[in-house]
Amino acid sequence: MSRLLKLAQKFNCFYLNGLLKGDCRPFVVDGHQVGLVSQNVIEQLLKYPEVFHIRAPEHGKQNIVELNPAFRDYNTRSQQVDRILREFREQGMFVALKGWRDECYDVKSSVSGSLLKMDRSATCLFGVRNYGVEINGYVRHPTKGLCIWLQQRSDTKQTWPGKWDNMVSGGLAVGYGVHETAVKEAAEEASIPGHLIKNLVSAGCVSFFFESERGLFPNTEFVYDLELPEDFVPDNSDGEVQNFQLLPAHECLERVFEPDFKTTSCPVVIDFLIRHGIITPENEINFTQVIELLHVPLQSLYTYRTPTTPSAAATNGGNGSATTPNERQDLSGTISTNKSIENGKL
Amino acid sequence: MSRLLKLAQKFNCFYLNGLLKGDCRPFVVDGHQVGLVSQNVIEQLLKYPEVFHIRAPEHGKQNIVELNPAFRDYNTRSQQVDRILREFREQGMFVALKGWRDECYDVKSSVSGSLLKMDRSATCLFGVRNYGVEINGYVRHPTKGLCIWLQQRSDTKQTWPGKWDNMVSGGLAVGYGVHETAVKEAAEEASIPGHLIKNLVSAGCVSFFFESERGLFPNTEFVYDLELPEDFVPDNSDGEVQNFQLLPAHECLERVFEPDFKTTSCPVVIDFLIRHGIITPENEINFTQVIELLHVPLQSLYTYRTPTTPSAAATNGGNGSATTPNERQDLSGTISTNKSIENGKL
Repeated sequence: MSRLLKLAQKFNCFYLNGLLKGDCRPFVVDGHQVGLVSQNVIEQLLKYPEVFHIRAPEHGKQNIVELNPAFRDYNTRSQQVDRILREFREQGMFVALKGWRDECYDVKSSVSGSLLKMDRSATCLFGVRNYGVEINGYVRHPTKGLCIWLQQRSDTKQTWPGKWDNMVSGGLAVGYGVHETAVKEAAEEASIPGHLIKNLVSAGCVSFFFESERGLFPNTEFVYDLELPEDFVPDNSDGEVQNFQLLPAHECLERVFEPDFKTTSCPVVIDFLIRHGIITPENEINFTQVIELLHVPLQSLYTYRTPTTPSAAATNGGNGSATTPNERQDLSGTISTNKSIENGKL
Repeated sequence: MSRLLKLAQKFNCFYLNGLLKGDCRPFVVDGHQVGLVSQNVIEQLLKYPEVFHIRAPEHGKQNIVELNPAFRDYNTRSQQVDRILREFREQGMFVALKGWRDECYDVKSSVSGSLLKMDRSATCLFGVRNYGVEINGYVRHPTKGLCIWLQQRSDTKQTWPGKWDNMVSGGLAVGYGVHETAVKEAAEEASIPGHLIKNLVSAGCVSFFFESERGLFPNTEFVYDLELPEDFVPDNSDGEVQNFQLLPAHECLERVFEPDFKTTSCPVVIDFLIRHGIITPENEINFTQVIELLHVPLQSLYTYRTPTTPSAAATNGGNGSATTPNERQDLSGTISTNKSIENGKL
């Protein structure tokens, strides 16, 4: 197995290992699974039965964690969850909440759209899908060939302090579009001027499922490429970066194997190096496997549905049939939690 | 659902539908699953019990189709299978064999390497993974912007006659490397001269699982981009192409939705348009789903292993444990045939 495949397995450690153990439970809001919750988080949620219901579905053995279906709208759900997260934070309950951001991510289902918002530091406790934007800043250097700008994150950042990272990256906050976020972050993090950001090219996305001591990270990063002139030097304006460095592509590939590179930023570098002919079927023995692990089928993981609508469930209805024709269109990938296997849904 | 997602579901029709029905059986050679066989093929294979064993594994309900484990080497296996395929062909048994190519593909397992070779027209009967190479020939036109060369396949081609296709494409035949195949096909199909083929850039791969009346197509296409000068016109030299056309990128996107475009070549066009910023998160509502369906986890589908080595099986050994630590590294994707579910392997 190549070191690149080993690295791809590392940033997919939950996808390839944790997920298969089946210890996590679906997190269900308004009848739709929007995340996965591990046992240590469930233990704490049990203290708030008025907000989180731990219940067994009809005809199934696996518990699910359900946000009280009596919370019927976005604002109520967001406020109720926020209240408890702030209590956890005050109690110093989870490492993840030490990085409280005062910036919210939307929690969506593939069917219903936005169901609530949650501080971005907390989404990893609920295994909520994360969307971000990353920009590969590169230079076609006359003598060094293809070169890539990397940033070193500030030592004061809440997450991955001091680690090397892509030139520009940022989460998709509530209310911002994808391209809009890319342009905003390019200005904030690297002071890319307007006449250069015009060259920004959308280049796809990468998806992977990482787990750390903070929690679960089912991440999708929208990827942009930005060719920069040889004489341009990025300059940070928001205090989140302490250094920028321009590396020849081959040195950049070596850099991702070093421990001071942010693990969850490796996929975007690897994808760039694949798309630009640096990593090829000739020099990478696990070429197709690595590419597969840059695009794991995240939207197929969260397929659990409660058997009935919340209102019907309140009157103890439900026929145990968890699959509707509409759900099949979500099955654009694979697996599945244990629940799906027990139901024989696949 | 966008029309692009509908198209991605079309070229993944087996991945999203047929696979889930569980009607196909693992095709096992030397203890390793190398393919999937549908019921109509199994019915014919039953007539050759000296070559194909239809057997139930220990502790399982699902039949598997196993190549006689007494055939211990590459040449014996290749000859035995070839003999029967030629009988099928003479009997006019399968549509697929009408396109007999006299060109073989290797049948490999992810663990053991090449196990046998088989005429490329027959691999779809056994659901054997197919590897090909495709080249996007493009021009940065001063007035029309990004333009893409398409070829129209000859009306006399065995498969997809007369359909529109990528500028250059070809299967990975036994004995040829990936880059080598790309250069060879570029010369044969489009007469790309040496000074231009130097600009060929490896750009990744796409994987999808299509089914047609001919059989099953778990395809992986290694993708190359080739920028061409405005005044270059491809010219066919092997009689396999009847026309070339240069289309602005947006017209090329429209073309893939037309019925005269080869369905299994759409993924490469779509991947190109995504990588070059024509299809973006802003103009494609199912952006992440489409990208996922360009990279379905094919290497995770064929995980069935016979419980024992062929020699041990011959003495009726076997402990029923089908999963070894080594197999876990194949699980870079998803599911899986019904067999995996029955075994609770995931």
